Amino acid sequence: MQQTSHLRRFVIVGHNATTAGTFSLNDLAGATGRLDVLLRCVNSALFTSHGIRQDTEVRLLLLGQPNAPKTITLKGREIKHLNPDERSTAALLKEALNKPIFGNSVGAGPGISVSRAIFKDILADAAKDSKLIALKEDGTDIRAAGLAPPLTFFLSDNRDFSDDELQALKDAGATFISLGPKSLLASHCVVIAHNEIDRTQIL
Amino acid sequence: MQQTSHLRRFVIVGHNATTAGTFSLNDLAGATGRLDVLLRCVNSALFTSHGIRQDTEVRLLLLGQPNAPKTITLKGREIKHLNPDERSTAALLKEALNKPIFGNSVGAGPGISVSRAIFKDILADAAKDSKLIALKEDGTDIRAAGLAPPLTFFLSDNRDFSDDELQALKDAGATFISLGPKSLLASHCVVIAHNEIDRTQIL
Repeated sequence: MQQTSHLRRFVIVGHNATTAGTFSLNDLAGATGRLDVLLRCVNSALFTSHGIRQDTEVRLLLLGQPNAPKTITLKGREIKHLNPDERSTAALLKEALNKPIFGNSVGAGPGISVSRAIFKDILADAAKDSKLIALKEDGTDIRAAGLAPPLTFFLSDNRDFSDDELQALKDAGATFISLGPKSLLASHCVVIAHNEIDRTQIL
Repeated sequence: MQQTSHLRRFVIVGHNATTAGTFSLNDLAGATGRLDVLLRCVNSALFTSHGIRQDTEVRLLLLGQPNAPKTITLKGREIKHLNPDERSTAALLKEALNKPIFGNSVGAGPGISVSRAIFKDILADAAKDSKLIALKEDGTDIRAAGLAPPLTFFLSDNRDFSDDELQALKDAGATFISLGPKSLLASHCVVIAHNEIDRTQIL
């Protein structure tokens, strides 16, 4: 994995998110195991007003039927054809899910790849090039944490992290960080994390 | 308009957003004058992880063809059937746009109404029950602004405010506020504004 000092990586666990590219783009919130939650996280992670965040990478860990696990990775520096709406992002992910996976990872268009990586693989990879941050309501306030890239943030979808995931995060030395007094949607958490790093990062 | 001391109102101007309920839910980003931008603002304004923000109201000022202006108002305390995805929110707005408007305002389901209000009407209404905040990159940093509800935030969609809109905001005494060093999508701005008020509001 490339060492990038300004790297901001967001790993979002989709506990029921579909691993087949057979879903309808007309029923993203109903028939995909809440892949729609992850679509909104992609928007939050990669878009500014005037373009794509070059130093940001998103990894979506999909744990739903019928072919779990699959991890889709989207790299801001390389991605093309990404638009901010849910439907067009879903179309990109659908294409990725239809790729047969041979070996470690398969490309699925510019800046998008899909692999069989599991949570512990993703943690181990991230630990090689970044500090590990788990976003959780009972963590240290991000404004008091002095975070600086390279960073990998771990978020859960509309469900909480499982006990096994929490244990793996702790075992890997992740710092638990909170973003404020309210429990927020995952996609909103990504926006707030970015804003905090935007404010502190020396570019 | 009801006086609500914890009120957070978000007014988003959709400069080309469609004013007809005839669009396809399958082409929200292409055929609606970027109504998709406003859909994402509704999500950001009204959702927390576990429910709807009761004290928040959203007003979408639609200035596109064929029947501008229309203003759709969504009230967190009253709304039902709202889900976080773009498509289902679009379906609610489509229904509202299909209502004939008689008089000042017409109901379009629980917590949703549509009117012929223009920008200056919305400003004047908001000034009656809240402090006016215009979100703009060159404003005062929100963290130094000491904001407290009741507040009405004014945002533009994917375009800048027009000169006339800026002048109207100044004439109405709006405070210009910035959210950080990067220019962000309107929906992301709503998330950051909420987070700042969440942190400072005495509940």
